[in-house]
Amino acid sequence: MWIDLRSDTVTQPTEAMRQAMAHAVVGDDVYGDDPTVNQLEKLTSELFGKEAALFVPSGTFGNQLAIMTHTQRGDEILLGDDCHILMHEVGAAAVLSGVQTRTFPTNSGHIDIEKLKRMIRGDDIHFPATGLLCMENAQSSGAVVSLADMQAVYQLAQSRHVPVHIDGARIFNASIAISADIKEIAACGDSVNVCLSKGLCAPVGSMLIGTRDFIRKARKNRKLMGGGLRQAGILAAAGILALTEMVSRLEDDHKNAHYLADRLEEIESCQVNRNRLAINMVFFTLPESVISEAALIEGLKNKMIRINGQEDGEYRFVTNYGVSVDDIDLVVKTMKTIIDN
Amino acid sequence: MWIDLRSDTVTQPTEAMRQAMAHAVVGDDVYGDDPTVNQLEKLTSELFGKEAALFVPSGTFGNQLAIMTHTQRGDEILLGDDCHILMHEVGAAAVLSGVQTRTFPTNSGHIDIEKLKRMIRGDDIHFPATGLLCMENAQSSGAVVSLADMQAVYQLAQSRHVPVHIDGARIFNASIAISADIKEIAACGDSVNVCLSKGLCAPVGSMLIGTRDFIRKARKNRKLMGGGLRQAGILAAAGILALTEMVSRLEDDHKNAHYLADRLEEIESCQVNRNRLAINMVFFTLPESVISEAALIEGLKNKMIRINGQEDGEYRFVTNYGVSVDDIDLVVKTMKTIIDN
Amino acid sequence: MWIDLRSDTVTQPTEAMRQAMAHAVVGDDVYGDDPTVNQLEKLTSELFGKEAALFVPSGTFGNQLAIMTHTQRGDEILLGDDCHILMHEVGAAAVLSGVQTRTFPTNSGHIDIEKLKRMIRGDDIHFPATGLLCMENAQSSGAVVSLADMQAVYQLAQSRHVPVHIDGARIFNASIAISADIKEIAACGDSVNVCLSKGLCAPVGSMLIGTRDFIRKARKNRKLMGGGLRQAGILAAAGILALTEMVSRLEDDHKNAHYLADRLEEIESCQVNRNRLAINMVFFTLPESVISEAALIEGLKNKMIRINGQEDGEYRFVTNYGVSVDDIDLVVKTMKTIIDN
Amino acid sequence: MWIDLRSDTVTQPTEAMRQAMAHAVVGDDVYGDDPTVNQLEKLTSELFGKEAALFVPSGTFGNQLAIMTHTQRGDEILLGDDCHILMHEVGAAAVLSGVQTRTFPTNSGHIDIEKLKRMIRGDDIHFPATGLLCMENAQSSGAVVSLADMQAVYQLAQSRHVPVHIDGARIFNASIAISADIKEIAACGDSVNVCLSKGLCAPVGSMLIGTRDFIRKARKNRKLMGGGLRQAGILAAAGILALTEMVSRLEDDHKNAHYLADRLEEIESCQVNRNRLAINMVFFTLPESVISEAALIEGLKNKMIRINGQEDGEYRFVTNYGVSVDDIDLVVKTMKTIIDN
Repeated sequence: MWIDLRSDTVTQPTEAMRQAMAHAVVGDDVYGDDPTVNQLEKLTSELFGKEAALFVPSGTFGNQLAIMTHTQRGDEILLGDDCHILMHEVGAAAVLSGVQTRTFPTNSGHIDIEKLKRMIRGDDIHFPATGLLCMENAQSSGAVVSLADMQAVYQLAQSRHVPVHIDGARIFNASIAISADIKEIAACGDSVNVCLSKGLCAPVGSMLIGTRDFIRKARKNRKLMGGGLRQAGILAAAGILALTEMVSRLEDDHKNAHYLADRLEEIESCQVNRNRLAINMVFFTLPESVISEAALIEGLKNKMIRINGQEDGEYRFVTNYGVSVDDIDLVVKTMKTIIDN
Repeated sequence: MWIDLRSDTVTQPTEAMRQAMAHAVVGDDVYGDDPTVNQLEKLTSELFGKEAALFVPSGTFGNQLAIMTHTQRGDEILLGDDCHILMHEVGAAAVLSGVQTRTFPTNSGHIDIEKLKRMIRGDDIHFPATGLLCMENAQSSGAVVSLADMQAVYQLAQSRHVPVHIDGARIFNASIAISADIKEIAACGDSVNVCLSKGLCAPVGSMLIGTRDFIRKARKNRKLMGGGLRQAGILAAAGILALTEMVSRLEDDHKNAHYLADRLEEIESCQVNRNRLAINMVFFTLPESVISEAALIEGLKNKMIRINGQEDGEYRFVTNYGVSVDDIDLVVKTMKTIIDN
Repeated sequence: MWIDLRSDTVTQPTEAMRQAMAHAVVGDDVYGDDPTVNQLEKLTSELFGKEAALFVPSGTFGNQLAIMTHTQRGDEILLGDDCHILMHEVGAAAVLSGVQTRTFPTNSGHIDIEKLKRMIRGDDIHFPATGLLCMENAQSSGAVVSLADMQAVYQLAQSRHVPVHIDGARIFNASIAISADIKEIAACGDSVNVCLSKGLCAPVGSMLIGTRDFIRKARKNRKLMGGGLRQAGILAAAGILALTEMVSRLEDDHKNAHYLADRLEEIESCQVNRNRLAINMVFFTLPESVISEAALIEGLKNKMIRINGQEDGEYRFVTNYGVSVDDIDLVVKTMKTIIDN
Repeated sequence: MWIDLRSDTVTQPTEAMRQAMAHAVVGDDVYGDDPTVNQLEKLTSELFGKEAALFVPSGTFGNQLAIMTHTQRGDEILLGDDCHILMHEVGAAAVLSGVQTRTFPTNSGHIDIEKLKRMIRGDDIHFPATGLLCMENAQSSGAVVSLADMQAVYQLAQSRHVPVHIDGARIFNASIAISADIKEIAACGDSVNVCLSKGLCAPVGSMLIGTRDFIRKARKNRKLMGGGLRQAGILAAAGILALTEMVSRLEDDHKNAHYLADRLEEIESCQVNRNRLAINMVFFTLPESVISEAALIEGLKNKMIRINGQEDGEYRFVTNYGVSVDDIDLVVKTMKTIIDN
């Protein structure tokens, strides 16, 4: 069995999910006939305190669908400078929606409201309209945004009639980290995207959440983007369990991440970034002089441990349902051995 | 139990598929780690006699991904004037790929090569480049294209260096109807899209097939479009059975469609279009003076029979795995009763 | 001096235009400060019986700006199958506006209202919205559309809440050919594009005409497309003369085109298409067996006569301000000599 | 006569330009037949030490055409966070070219090479390709970039196979400010855009400059964007004078800007930003408590002085051909009077 620290997307569906999928009552969801999808959508909207929800194939799909549905061709969207939408969605917003991306700093998790205020465009023949403001929580950088910051951003956006989308791929992780109710967080945006397939272990799918009218429009745009699935109830059955059975266990991943961080610091020259140690991700640096990236990846792979290469000079290890405390001990022990050789 | 004639997309996964999904070995397909997806992709490429294949969430996704991968922004694509890409994919090609659609007549199933030849653009500052030629077989109009026509089109396209995409959502139906091997049909295009979720009964998914290089590029564009799934092996497990166990049974749907056509003609003023009765679809007209659309839909619904409303003045009834000869008899009998009242 | 039959775009500005340009009072039109541009825009809107008008750099710019301003990303636009927007604007509508093009037959100049009616999309998750209907008059095919046809199309479009754009690049030629007032023709569309730089001899520019609100939006989109010019009054000064002094002379071009057609028919095997001989364009075929395209172009060029190569198997000769009856006699005489050698 | 400090785009064509326009020899530039345009294009390419050049209607047009020609749909482009392309071109890059914008800080005029290095994307399924790097010199912020910085950026870009575009709308101002030859600056990019219509006083037009192959592609894209003009030689005639007669006088605008800055500082609480006082623009703050924006604009307007409102909390006054030292004295005197009242 592999120990896989590359992401929490690698999590396997639970046995209960497999049973649920095998027995799901399904229909053609393009016709709105799939009872399991309908149940998941209802459950999700209630959980987040919004009017409606829509099953989509992936987190990237959910974010891009939100952008397409909120904006018009030629709008400018404001988003964090290291957020997933900008950094890890293949530049999709410009292709799919024809919107210009413009960023504000969020690396620390803090959002500078005054700066943001100046970024919202006024009425001028040279300016695109500010069509959307995106927040990410938890951030894919490993940091979280405080509820107060989120509320301040939403208040600003509403006062300027700019809609807000929350990329909540790991919104339950954020909820735990900032001790805020999921509804309170969701109340800071007009739409929310949440992934069923990361720490929550469902095999496939995300939910886009918003007003009834927004979701109605998103349903048509989902078809345009090729995300109109047929008997999607198979996947929705697992999604229902993800939302009802798997949320509370995310706290274990956070604890394990802290434990992993502590253990990594035992390694000489290994610097954990504790400013971005809020959820289930540990970012750290390890100089090439200590161990080369290639040697570390290869050495761990030989011991059935999978990690990603560095991004922007940092390693990222992600704890998840498949990673136990014992696994962490083994990982650190293996790293020490590789470095010592 | 409903009798559902709206489409073959309504088919339920078989019990074998449900078992396969419950026990599928899965991994994170974005990392290329899902063995069941890999198996399905290998199986598909071999079946179609091409180098590689890619699992995608839907037929629309597969077609649009092919367009995005073949073309550059600003190209013109040539396609049939009643094909699915133009008529039923929400105008996606212009949004996602920025390509202009221009059509040739295909309603009969026949393609006029001389006309097509004149439509391929030469080099002129006023002209977009002809970036792609799309054929559909079987057509969503119910007609099929002969192998000779397909070969002639492909020969022309190759001589002009224009790539060809085949929308083979129902390519197995076409294969049966024109008695041509699936590899022979696939050889008439550079890429092929085939749906697992129509007559073949898989719950979700389609396959895009092409050269290794094309599929490599498509894999990245799939991510951009939000179709990078995680433990997609759940769905691929059903897809494997769709391709290995369900193809031969499509012939029953065709026979049933002919039987349905014969029976419908018993109804006075009901005109079946026999020019487009090649696969599992029966197109017919029924004057409003005989029975209004609303009354027919409502009357059948009361007897647990689902049909779609007319499109362009025609009804379309689609036979599928869930529709037996007895069901057809019941449908026609019910229609007669509704009309007589 | 060359005799140039390639197009009426080759016309030189008149001496009066040159004087007007040299003495034009100008300002920065991006700030709305150019009095000559403002005068041209006011004059144009009055001439066409609409609220407002906007100076744009070219006919293609005006058409594409109209499309961008009328539509939303993802709309479908309906247009003639041989119109300039589809055939000669480099596929711009898909790139700039993300709209799908779908065509109706117009080669004869007649528009089939029943067919058009069926093409306007209803409300369905598979359908793009019909965002715009485009008519062209005079057509770039040389045909004209009757006022009755235009009125019927506009009535249909209005009843279905679809805006109508008229590509009137040569609308004054159409006005003469169908003996209809320019205001009557313009009343058949929500927006009109008219070129100052074709038969009317201005060096550069077209006008986009519509409601005040439409032009206000178009002004911003013009900036986005890079068409916000500065001291454009230089060009507008010539445009004012084009509209006030040059319209009536277009009738000479039409007469000359008929004279040219008659003379061309003296050449054996030369077939003039009289169905599309409504304005200043003569379309004809001349078999390669009589004279090759290359030989004809080269032979005429040696005698200071410029023509274009064939498009879709036809030659097009365009009469214009620089082409006299004597020039036509010389052209035909020269052709005969080339063919006889 | 107005004193216009809003921009240098407000400059009037000189009498010599008007004479040149009146007598220009012109042809149809879409056919490549306009000798004056051809002369301007040749002259420009030689002046900048590149293979070819293209006349375009505006600076925005030139920049956007460069982006469209360098990139493919879905690329990411890197550019300064306060540059014209991002801030003042209506979000066009996303609409016209489907590219994602991502910014590096340039406000000071300095570019951090190490940061830029990390921003160029590697090969990963989550990443768009880095399709273009844009520098602006002089910046529309009023700062200039040193030749050393430009050379370092270009070296980096070349080593990573990323093309570089220079927005040189005011490249001659930069050349004067950094005492670098125009060819040396142009050598730091694969393409350059330069405006004829700002400080150089031509009424309309910019030049896009690059390799022969790049300009050939740009010529076709110019047609797509609606910028294929006909007898553009009228405008090119003024452009030739702009490049041959008007460049050296820009130094006066710079001196006047410094003089204006000194005089403005006489006003209490008026803070000139001397970090961005490199060319003909003076950026300064003046607290609302001293004088409201509306009162200042209105008060100056009453004395025939035009200024723009603040952007991002700053006023910008731009010296130009129409603004003399005496005018500056009058402006400052008038401001003092308004504030004192």
